[in-house]
Amino acid sequence: MAIEQLQSLLGEDLRAVDRAIHRLLESDIPLIALLANYVIESGGKRLRPMVLLAAARMFGYRGHRHHTLAAVVELLHTATLMHDDVVDAAQQRRATPTANALWGSQAPVLVGDFLFARAFQSMVADRDIRVLEILSAATRELAEGEVLQLQNTHDPDVAEEDYLRVVTAKTAVLFEAAARLAAVISERPQAEEEALARYGHNLGVAFQLIDDCLDYSATAADWGKHLGNDLEEGNPTLPTIHALAHADKQGREAIRRALAEEGAAWLDPVRAAIERTGAIEYTREVASQRASWAKQALATLPDTEERQALAAAAEFTVGRDF
Amino acid sequence: MAIEQLQSLLGEDLRAVDRAIHRLLESDIPLIALLANYVIESGGKRLRPMVLLAAARMFGYRGHRHHTLAAVVELLHTATLMHDDVVDAAQQRRATPTANALWGSQAPVLVGDFLFARAFQSMVADRDIRVLEILSAATRELAEGEVLQLQNTHDPDVAEEDYLRVVTAKTAVLFEAAARLAAVISERPQAEEEALARYGHNLGVAFQLIDDCLDYSATAADWGKHLGNDLEEGNPTLPTIHALAHADKQGREAIRRALAEEGAAWLDPVRAAIERTGAIEYTREVASQRASWAKQALATLPDTEERQALAAAAEFTVGRDF
Repeated sequence: MAIEQLQSLLGEDLRAVDRAIHRLLESDIPLIALLANYVIESGGKRLRPMVLLAAARMFGYRGHRHHTLAAVVELLHTATLMHDDVVDAAQQRRATPTANALWGSQAPVLVGDFLFARAFQSMVADRDIRVLEILSAATRELAEGEVLQLQNTHDPDVAEEDYLRVVTAKTAVLFEAAARLAAVISERPQAEEEALARYGHNLGVAFQLIDDCLDYSATAADWGKHLGNDLEEGNPTLPTIHALAHADKQGREAIRRALAEEGAAWLDPVRAAIERTGAIEYTREVASQRASWAKQALATLPDTEERQALAAAAEFTVGRDF
Repeated sequence: MAIEQLQSLLGEDLRAVDRAIHRLLESDIPLIALLANYVIESGGKRLRPMVLLAAARMFGYRGHRHHTLAAVVELLHTATLMHDDVVDAAQQRRATPTANALWGSQAPVLVGDFLFARAFQSMVADRDIRVLEILSAATRELAEGEVLQLQNTHDPDVAEEDYLRVVTAKTAVLFEAAARLAAVISERPQAEEEALARYGHNLGVAFQLIDDCLDYSATAADWGKHLGNDLEEGNPTLPTIHALAHADKQGREAIRRALAEEGAAWLDPVRAAIERTGAIEYTREVASQRASWAKQALATLPDTEERQALAAAAEFTVGRDF
């Protein structure tokens, strides 16, 4: 399995990243230490750090900056999740209660801010303006993606193109930044940096699209959230966007009402419309296309074990059931 | 009046900062443009930018970086206010409805994140690691201060010293950073940078302490919030900390219950205890001490019109009724 392949390949590096993360979360303020550690330990797959680490090793990078920067990327991601869960009033993520489910929404808003700030401070300590430009631009797009998604909430008329902008901003951009940083700290030529950035970007889009499929098609036990989360939040994603464009009148009506009002009651007819229109298959196809672009982008990069693992990760991303 | 003196002295610079702020808030995402502009226009006094601008002029600074950096400081401050108001479920600030009062709490969480990210991106574009170190450290302390304040909520046993740490982190640190940046971009010697930082720090503490007094003693019309806000939020501040230490049994009981439970019902007996123990006078005295330290810190700096205005601002801060 690709994730385990990456994990065993990156074993020592991943442990170094976890140590870096824990150093960044040290605080004499108990509420920070408690929540930050809870969220960071709640079973994240560390995908973004793995992309950065594997790419740095592919380039034969020999320093320690990749550990710090991978920790920074994971912190940015974690801060976003904390705020996202507050905004969605989400009760579960990765089969465990969210921070807001346990402590209410006040502390996660402020501890999320601390994570952002700590990530900034740590990337500044790396003292490389190029790195800072990449990460600050990514953070800005991440924030824009979150607002854009909120703006699209309860709007059944979001077009596929608008939706792809959300996916790009809220997910692809940080994968892209993680990949790009590996090329930058390894001082690789511009063409290789762009190729790797393309890998990260397309991997990120594929990853998010599959996430969106699983929200309608996973078995809840594997998935760690309950099904129909997006529908309940009134969040249009590619499965509902495609189904809305191709369903019969009854199916369209179900999707529109589900997104506009409280969606949970409409999960069954919406899932039926998604099934009849092949919307999951369509979304998986778009994701597969992205995964294959990601793999193609690797072609000009050093042909190492790590490159193979990155290619396998792209395949895993679209093949996964969780 | 000191604020108007500063405003007229800094007229063109302040307008340049406002233009810089508006450039930073430009977005093709309507929800960002709407909320960010609403909050930034909601009558903030631009005190932190004014400190930076006046100090830069005192040093004869001739570039344009002070405009961008003052805009960045105001953005960081504004982002913090947005999240603070969400956490407190505050309905009014500066006599206008808060963003969460108008749009609910979801958008302000995410637009606040955008402001942080945009501020960070803009300071990176300034390309000076020293500046980035100062601002990222300040942002981290700001976030810590907010969490610390939340942690102290409903705790009547917060000591004066603990409280001063909150004030330092949530208010003084950003004033200090604003002041310090003026010395850094003007390439002044370390001793002058430290003197100016001391000015900003003490000004910030004084400013916050007076804010805390006004919450119990202002006339609501001037103040722009309703009285007893801190009590209602269970937020111990120097007036209640001092009163608790010096009140009779009945007064102590009122303060304890007000902070531990819902405070609004206890406002009258708490105000009576504050009055009997001279807690407002005590807090104003501590603030005056800080303001005079702030003024003393200016002694070794260039004796210009701007230095006089900075000294007057310290006096205004402790003399104000709003």
